[in-house]
Amino acid sequence: MKSKIQMTKISNFFYKIIDAGDVWAHCDLFCGVYDPAQARIEAQSVYNAMKIYHMAKDDASKQRVVLIKEQRAELVKHHLWVLWTDYFQPEHAEKFENLHDLFWKATKAAGDAKKSVDPADGQKLIDMIDEIGSIFAATKDGYQYGPVASNMLGQAK
Amino acid sequence: MKSKIQMTKISNFFYKIIDAGDVWAHCDLFCGVYDPAQARIEAQSVYNAMKIYHMAKDDASKQRVVLIKEQRAELVKHHLWVLWTDYFQPEHAEKFENLHDLFWKATKAAGDAKKSVDPADGQKLIDMIDEIGSIFAATKDGYQYGPVASNMLGQAK
Amino acid sequence: MKSKIQMTKISNFFYKIIDAGDVWAHCDLFCGVYDPAQARIEAQSVYNAMKIYHMAKDDASKQRVVLIKEQRAELVKHHLWVLWTDYFQPEHAEKFENLHDLFWKATKAAGDAKKSVDPADGQKLIDMIDEIGSIFAATKDGYQYGPVASNMLGQAK
Amino acid sequence: MKSKIQMTKISNFFYKIIDAGDVWAHCDLFCGVYDPAQARIEAQSVYNAMKIYHMAKDDASKQRVVLIKEQRAELVKHHLWVLWTDYFQPEHAEKFENLHDLFWKATKAAGDAKKSVDPADGQKLIDMIDEIGSIFAATKDGYQYGPVASNMLGQAK
Amino acid sequence: MKSKIQMTKISNFFYKIIDAGDVWAHCDLFCGVYDPAQARIEAQSVYNAMKIYHMAKDDASKQRVVLIKEQRAELVKHHLWVLWTDYFQPEHAEKFENLHDLFWKATKAAGDAKKSVDPADGQKLIDMIDEIGSIFAATKDGYQYGPVASNMLGQAK
Amino acid sequence: MKSKIQMTKISNFFYKIIDAGDVWAHCDLFCGVYDPAQARIEAQSVYNAMKIYHMAKDDASKQRVVLIKEQRAELVKHHLWVLWTDYFQPEHAEKFENLHDLFWKATKAAGDAKKSVDPADGQKLIDMIDEIGSIFAATKDGYQYGPVASNMLGQAK
Repeated sequence: MKSKIQMTKISNFFYKIIDAGDVWAHCDLFCGVYDPAQARIEAQSVYNAMKIYHMAKDDASKQRVVLIKEQRAELVKHHLWVLWTDYFQPEHAEKFENLHDLFWKATKAAGDAKKSVDPADGQKLIDMIDEIGSIFAATKDGYQYGPVASNMLGQAK
Repeated sequence: MKSKIQMTKISNFFYKIIDAGDVWAHCDLFCGVYDPAQARIEAQSVYNAMKIYHMAKDDASKQRVVLIKEQRAELVKHHLWVLWTDYFQPEHAEKFENLHDLFWKATKAAGDAKKSVDPADGQKLIDMIDEIGSIFAATKDGYQYGPVASNMLGQAK
Repeated sequence: MKSKIQMTKISNFFYKIIDAGDVWAHCDLFCGVYDPAQARIEAQSVYNAMKIYHMAKDDASKQRVVLIKEQRAELVKHHLWVLWTDYFQPEHAEKFENLHDLFWKATKAAGDAKKSVDPADGQKLIDMIDEIGSIFAATKDGYQYGPVASNMLGQAK
Repeated sequence: MKSKIQMTKISNFFYKIIDAGDVWAHCDLFCGVYDPAQARIEAQSVYNAMKIYHMAKDDASKQRVVLIKEQRAELVKHHLWVLWTDYFQPEHAEKFENLHDLFWKATKAAGDAKKSVDPADGQKLIDMIDEIGSIFAATKDGYQYGPVASNMLGQAK
Repeated sequence: MKSKIQMTKISNFFYKIIDAGDVWAHCDLFCGVYDPAQARIEAQSVYNAMKIYHMAKDDASKQRVVLIKEQRAELVKHHLWVLWTDYFQPEHAEKFENLHDLFWKATKAAGDAKKSVDPADGQKLIDMIDEIGSIFAATKDGYQYGPVASNMLGQAK
Repeated sequence: MKSKIQMTKISNFFYKIIDAGDVWAHCDLFCGVYDPAQARIEAQSVYNAMKIYHMAKDDASKQRVVLIKEQRAELVKHHLWVLWTDYFQPEHAEKFENLHDLFWKATKAAGDAKKSVDPADGQKLIDMIDEIGSIFAATKDGYQYGPVASNMLGQAK
């Protein structure tokens, strides 16, 4: 098994970049770690749950899907709210004029996803998070949102 | 602001790949969405908290760091446990012989990180998650763990 | 003990008003129950904790205060986020132009309260919630925010 | 928008009263903030959920109602238990002889509400919390329970 | 390793008793599973945390102890409240006249344990839970509380 | 009511044993309190829920069962994961060669129990926890797992 070695190589590569200077931006706030991946991952679960709902054959399975979808959509809301309040700063709100509205609509879309079993509503939520993800990337040097989304698309039902 | 347009382009690109056929593997299980990014993100918080502990000037701030580190390390454990139990299957355990031991040591490392304020203990935890991440990537076509880790390294204190 | 009788009288009075017709507005959404009291109550705990921090004589008590303050401030954020996303609708955002900004600053103030032990920061948070409470009352016929706030002021340290 | 100004006026009014002396009682205990409003708000959600259950047209919506009702009834129990254990003191138990029994029956009523979709069971729970609320008010100078209940009645389905 | 075989023997023994008829009483309620062991286990953690507090050498460790003690004491309260409200019935309250008072004092003792680092306060809490445990055993044929307590005493610091 | 006196006697008996010396082993780790009873109790709830599912007459009751079963099975997983990571040490893994595999399969069985309403799947989970319980007992002098299991069997539906 050679995964250990491969990773070590990758890590060394990363650290070189880090040590090299100011290439990588980082957050100046207290806790300082944010990633729209958290909301995106849960949104994929919501979307997949909607697809599975229609495949489920018995009542108990459908009930589970509704329950899991509810929990995951709640986590989407939480992760989005945290990004909005804790990560984004006045200068971002100035630069991205629709920032507040986008987060409002995205968290409302997560609420709508709780009430729906239509995968189109899940897709709408994912699209909004992807838009937030690309704004996030635009504010953070070196952060790549593309792979975050593609890692999830590869797990779509 | 052109982020919307850029993202749409990326999305279209992804969907083309998805629609193209079997290029992207996905999980056959019920819920079907897994991503070691979840554990990696929380581990970065643990590491950063350790660094911040030594910079904090008053007792109340240090107490907050201990509290946040405890919560984040618990989340690391949870996300790792979920990966181990829910994602990995017997065929993976056969292929990656140290799978159980690696998860055992990684979750123990998260426990050790609760007890310590030495960033080296946080780094040890991150290294183990990176190793798990690379194994995960090796089992999932199209999943890239590299950007997941580099997105976090860019946010290291 | 005559409290039972008194309450019954009050209840009858309320029900008469309810039954009387359309005097009381109510939410048309799914779950339909919202009350800024939830955020206001937790904010009072945050404020009181800040006062108590300075009265506490031993380290263990101070540590408890920091912990409880952190939890309560997190609950403030949660209750405010729920109000913002779930209760308020586009027509409200149009009428109260600073709605998004007010919620953003109020939830940021809750974050600041986690980092501070200065009661002035707790007061700032309470003031913003009181402003939200008065907007809420302005959108809901028959809702009184005044007593919600005064019930808490009576419990201030 | 004049809500800001109105609130400031109200606040000043409250602070004058507070500053005036001993008019407002407050709790002598550690954390010191209690309000039966917390249980009352969740109980309204339970009651509304019961009403909505019978209006819901599809299975998935009914399943959501059952789930939300369960969570809200659990919160009712929690908030009542906290009041009973943390707020009420031996002198209250002496004065209000049925205090223990009332809390026991009210928390049991919350459990019954989990098992039922009959709004009458939700009303029974609300009535008991209203009785607790009036006892609470009787023990705390300046606290008004009436508006707490009427704020909720205005949101009844 | 012969543990598997031993357990199978024990299991068979239990099932024989179960199958034999009405020897084992069981709860008639919905969920039907209760065990004072849950509260007793967490109370032991509270007690041990108090002992460890005085052994801890650095501030960060003491802060962790305060945090863990707080969480565990909260779990004690929760498990006791559940027993009181969900398991015990009017016929029990009639037979054990101090039932309500005992639970009130035990949950208050859990609250006191949050505020204290004196192991004597932890012991007081354990004693009350042991008293509840013996009442529980007296209401449930075949339930043994003795081993529950001794399993914990063996883990006391 | 003589339960108080009986318990005091039992307690004295236990303390004598404790005070007598090294008869009772205890954990050397930080927190130091572990008991497979926690997982076993929740597993009994899962099993009972499965039985109740088939007795339930209306949809709302069945939905509740699915919900409660999901929560309880999640708690089983959590308690098992904690035992595996926090309690068991390398020397145990060496002595009980199937330790990792047993925990992996037991937590997977808890996941399977979420997806099933067949009591046989609940029994499979219980059997694995009983096996873990007997291993735990074999590593801890004075700990009795038998009564833990029999206390639950007496509450089986």
